[in-house]
Amino acid sequence: MDQEQVEMVGKLFVDRYYHLFDNDRASVSSFYQPSSMLNFEGQKILGVDNISCKLSQLPFDKCRHDISTIDSQPSSTSAGSIVVFVSGSLQLVGEEHSLRFNQMFHLVPIAQANFFVQNDIFRLNYG
Amino acid sequence: MDQEQVEMVGKLFVDRYYHLFDNDRASVSSFYQPSSMLNFEGQKILGVDNISCKLSQLPFDKCRHDISTIDSQPSSTSAGSIVVFVSGSLQLVGEEHSLRFNQMFHLVPIAQANFFVQNDIFRLNYG
Repeated sequence: MDQEQVEMVGKLFVDRYYHLFDNDRASVSSFYQPSSMLNFEGQKILGVDNISCKLSQLPFDKCRHDISTIDSQPSSTSAGSIVVFVSGSLQLVGEEHSLRFNQMFHLVPIAQANFFVQNDIFRLNYG
Repeated sequence: MDQEQVEMVGKLFVDRYYHLFDNDRASVSSFYQPSSMLNFEGQKILGVDNISCKLSQLPFDKCRHDISTIDSQPSSTSAGSIVVFVSGSLQLVGEEHSLRFNQMFHLVPIAQANFFVQNDIFRLNYG
């Protein structure tokens, strides 16, 4: 993949990931595999089942992610893998202020020109 | 590497990287290779020489990075590789307020139990 394709894949992934998160959160588990890792605000969660459980138990229901920046790079040590770095804000329904966040994904290709999330690190911005 | 070792490597790298950045910025180039990529506030820079040039030309001289959080995970698609996600603040000498930032690194092992930075994405936090 050249840099343009990498950025296209990163953007398509980000659009799809947060659209599903905001509209059908349970289906976000389709992005993960048994080897996937999530660090959520410092909490370490391993595997699609535990990640799915964590996301379903977040202390808010409806939310909306607004994306500010997407940086994507080929992770050339593994053919076709991509690192994606996102900044944005998270608006919870019923809350006046949105929360700024950063999140990074390491996407690894699987069959059918598709990717799964091997690494996922999420942090809210404070201060 | 188990998770504990991964976190130790991530922390040692972060301590060393920002210590060098703040005290001897030119030597930070030793972390990069010809294949390394840096996205700096959206600007894409390829290779150790260009990255070194970019870092030397940043519009500030003395600075201090204070690290708030470090998340490290094994990037299992490549034996021994690690993703490291950092949040912190950047204090420029002569400026009253510090700048919040996030940065991610993809570290790839090389000989002598050492790592180089394959991917580096830096973003200031606004808002």
